[in-house]
Amino acid sequence: MPRRYAFGRADEATHPDSMRATLAELVSTFIFVFAGEGSVLALEHVFGASDKLYKETGPPASGLVMIALAHALALFAAVAASINVSGGHVNPAVTFAALVGGRISVVRAIYYWIAQILGSIIASLLLRLVTNGMRPVGFYVTSGVGEGNGLILEIVLTFGLVYVVYATAIDPKRGSLGIMAPLAIGLIVGANILVGGPFDGAAMNPARAFGPSLVGWRWKNHWIYWLGPFLGGGLAAIIYEYMIIPTEPPLHTHHQPLAPEDY
Amino acid sequence: MPRRYAFGRADEATHPDSMRATLAELVSTFIFVFAGEGSVLALEHVFGASDKLYKETGPPASGLVMIALAHALALFAAVAASINVSGGHVNPAVTFAALVGGRISVVRAIYYWIAQILGSIIASLLLRLVTNGMRPVGFYVTSGVGEGNGLILEIVLTFGLVYVVYATAIDPKRGSLGIMAPLAIGLIVGANILVGGPFDGAAMNPARAFGPSLVGWRWKNHWIYWLGPFLGGGLAAIIYEYMIIPTEPPLHTHHQPLAPEDY
Amino acid sequence: MPRRYAFGRADEATHPDSMRATLAELVSTFIFVFAGEGSVLALEHVFGASDKLYKETGPPASGLVMIALAHALALFAAVAASINVSGGHVNPAVTFAALVGGRISVVRAIYYWIAQILGSIIASLLLRLVTNGMRPVGFYVTSGVGEGNGLILEIVLTFGLVYVVYATAIDPKRGSLGIMAPLAIGLIVGANILVGGPFDGAAMNPARAFGPSLVGWRWKNHWIYWLGPFLGGGLAAIIYEYMIIPTEPPLHTHHQPLAPEDY
Amino acid sequence: MPRRYAFGRADEATHPDSMRATLAELVSTFIFVFAGEGSVLALEHVFGASDKLYKETGPPASGLVMIALAHALALFAAVAASINVSGGHVNPAVTFAALVGGRISVVRAIYYWIAQILGSIIASLLLRLVTNGMRPVGFYVTSGVGEGNGLILEIVLTFGLVYVVYATAIDPKRGSLGIMAPLAIGLIVGANILVGGPFDGAAMNPARAFGPSLVGWRWKNHWIYWLGPFLGGGLAAIIYEYMIIPTEPPLHTHHQPLAPEDY
Repeated sequence: MPRRYAFGRADEATHPDSMRATLAELVSTFIFVFAGEGSVLALEHVFGASDKLYKETGPPASGLVMIALAHALALFAAVAASINVSGGHVNPAVTFAALVGGRISVVRAIYYWIAQILGSIIASLLLRLVTNGMRPVGFYVTSGVGEGNGLILEIVLTFGLVYVVYATAIDPKRGSLGIMAPLAIGLIVGANILVGGPFDGAAMNPARAFGPSLVGWRWKNHWIYWLGPFLGGGLAAIIYEYMIIPTEPPLHTHHQPLAPEDY
Repeated sequence: MPRRYAFGRADEATHPDSMRATLAELVSTFIFVFAGEGSVLALEHVFGASDKLYKETGPPASGLVMIALAHALALFAAVAASINVSGGHVNPAVTFAALVGGRISVVRAIYYWIAQILGSIIASLLLRLVTNGMRPVGFYVTSGVGEGNGLILEIVLTFGLVYVVYATAIDPKRGSLGIMAPLAIGLIVGANILVGGPFDGAAMNPARAFGPSLVGWRWKNHWIYWLGPFLGGGLAAIIYEYMIIPTEPPLHTHHQPLAPEDY
Repeated sequence: MPRRYAFGRADEATHPDSMRATLAELVSTFIFVFAGEGSVLALEHVFGASDKLYKETGPPASGLVMIALAHALALFAAVAASINVSGGHVNPAVTFAALVGGRISVVRAIYYWIAQILGSIIASLLLRLVTNGMRPVGFYVTSGVGEGNGLILEIVLTFGLVYVVYATAIDPKRGSLGIMAPLAIGLIVGANILVGGPFDGAAMNPARAFGPSLVGWRWKNHWIYWLGPFLGGGLAAIIYEYMIIPTEPPLHTHHQPLAPEDY
Repeated sequence: MPRRYAFGRADEATHPDSMRATLAELVSTFIFVFAGEGSVLALEHVFGASDKLYKETGPPASGLVMIALAHALALFAAVAASINVSGGHVNPAVTFAALVGGRISVVRAIYYWIAQILGSIIASLLLRLVTNGMRPVGFYVTSGVGEGNGLILEIVLTFGLVYVVYATAIDPKRGSLGIMAPLAIGLIVGANILVGGPFDGAAMNPARAFGPSLVGWRWKNHWIYWLGPFLGGGLAAIIYEYMIIPTEPPLHTHHQPLAPEDY
């Protein structure tokens, strides 16, 4: 059986390691959301909030690159800063996928979810403070596409993200490749924002969406940024856990992953 | 003799590992094509499909950066997510090169090709769905250059890509450098798109080209995106396999690759 | 007890290793500031120094990406080039955080601070020379936000940076992840510039701010680029050192970090 | 004594390993120059060669990012593809620095120089072919700065590059950090282009400059792209080799580099 992140120990809720992991999720989600949502506000500051074209079609190509890079680089650093302490989820949909795959206990998942949401709210509040009162933007479906399109887009984008998380950070046969997990996770989010950004913002992360929505009090289309990531993440977990990770006893497998001694 | 990816085992066609590797190729190619072709549609959504200048000269510098980054970051993640399961080809030209170099069996190559093409088609179909009906663009030669120029460009660009694949992911003496293989593969594709993008789109990957062509039903210049990558990839395989990888018995080699103990 | 960077040895001030580490900090800070401040001057050269809009709102999205990438890529290389010799601080706020966490002696911290400031001054002087006399720009709070906003912004951004430094480069349980420390450090700075750039420039580094201020003789808002980074960095050190790094004896910990044998 | 790249063996000129290393330098320089110079031509194709503003001030911010990324990503891949075979120089100035530091024999240095120049010429010729006759641009000092400024700029930028090469790829105490050497080398070049690009193009590499100059037959300012990189690279080699690398016997050193067991 594959190594599990955490066992459902009776003392898990009060164990110092659970507390540390929860704090690590909170801080890393804070760092990620501050950079991610902050880059959206920075772009709005540069363009001027009254720019009508900007509001309708979303940012131009250079603005999309700016937002995608801010998310990609910050998520890489945030995952790298927490992967050894908490597993580096930084995303309720990843925590949900780890739960679906049986790699985290329900108690720990609830702790992580609370921490991720708190981190996102604190980041959004501080963004409002440092920008002298700018209202966080969050996510919404742009003109030309409907809510149904946005929902499927969130499912597909989060499926890709969580599949990468599973393959590089959770798969017990990942070998030395695990060193690259934070980078792969950060950069697939950046790539996916370059696709989904102009259509629905490409959240792939309910905590990333929730904090700015709460602080900016914008709830239009908000539900798709919860349902989509959970469906896409859960699907990726099921496919990777039950179809890609071998279930034969390790001694009989013919498969040869890149082992440390190959490096 | 160097370690081979896969042996021509009699039971290969039905072995669970072959199935897993094939599924991994399908999912990773899906993730890559969704982000790559998706970024092209996202840019068109931002610019407006009727922009004449855009159609004639291709995207401006910021749009090229956006498309190149989407391909580079997504391919890195897609290769990282499959390298330990399938070798991380995500590209029929890479599979062809591995076949030319004798590092994969014909059976497995056919499996991979089918999976890569299927992944690309599914990605293109889903892109059409989530964008509310946008027609995938695929690849074509832009004004100012001819089909012959485009063919040679695809040969040269894919030669560079597959040479990097061979050196970092296949060379049995690659050592710890193998950890960086997915990143090197993703980023050389990004760099090459910044060169070839304005001239012929810079596919370097027949599956990447085929799915959008089929779903968007655009076949202009399509053949060069099959012939070019296969010629360039095959050439790189021959040069690397027979001129760079030493053929002397390992015990007598004077060459000193970076070994794990050097790190 | 965790492994410490440096012990307060009596001979530290004159030991060749201290001299080498100090020189490494000087050269790496020089490389970083030359690229960072240089990219600001390069952008001004491209736009023309008289562009009024540019002066008021800061650079457009493409210019922000350019500046953020220059800082991120150069800092990664500068930290990578010094992490094995000096710990790769390249930033007085990081040195301060290491001092707060008890991971560096006061003597060595003073050496590093002098070296970092010298490196930044030399870079600024050479920039003036190679650009045929352009006056370095440094950092200032842009219109629309006040000095108080800028101070809090520097605190928050540097908190994120130093938290990442602690988790990936200092935490004695970081394991193989330490290889990625320079990249995580460089890229979180890039991400944070994409947030803070349009508001206060996002220094997160007093040496980065001081050299250009001195050579360009611009001191407006300068104090916030010292106080903010020291407060934010110190806070991150306290949280990580005393709340995330376990204090139980290693033998009794239930926590399972990614160990080398997992890779 | 530190491990040397190559010993001055009597049979070095004809040894298969020398031939392989030389071929690897040729191919990797070809890949790098094709992407680097190719991105310059791609940008010119997008803007239109007759754009006067473009000719005078150099590319805008988005174009600079495009060119810097093309060089950075391609050089990373090119160095990664050759570092285990030839040391991954891909640059006559790096080869010169290795010679100055006593880490390569004169015979091998000459072989590498020839290969690097040949690779650059072939890349430039093929670029002319695939772009339907565009004339390679190469490097020149832009208006507003003089040849002397450009020379010093090349010295400073190459100093930074070669210092990073020495610290991450040559220093015998680099440890596991060596895995990151190709990335650090590629990305410092990208960062430096974002600084020097608008002033003198930022070559840092005589082979990168020579091929396009020959094929495009443009020799204005050409000498500074040879003298500058050799001076800057040689200076970095001397400083790193004799001031940073310890000279005490290994057993008595108090310095503690990050060793493999720390990861």
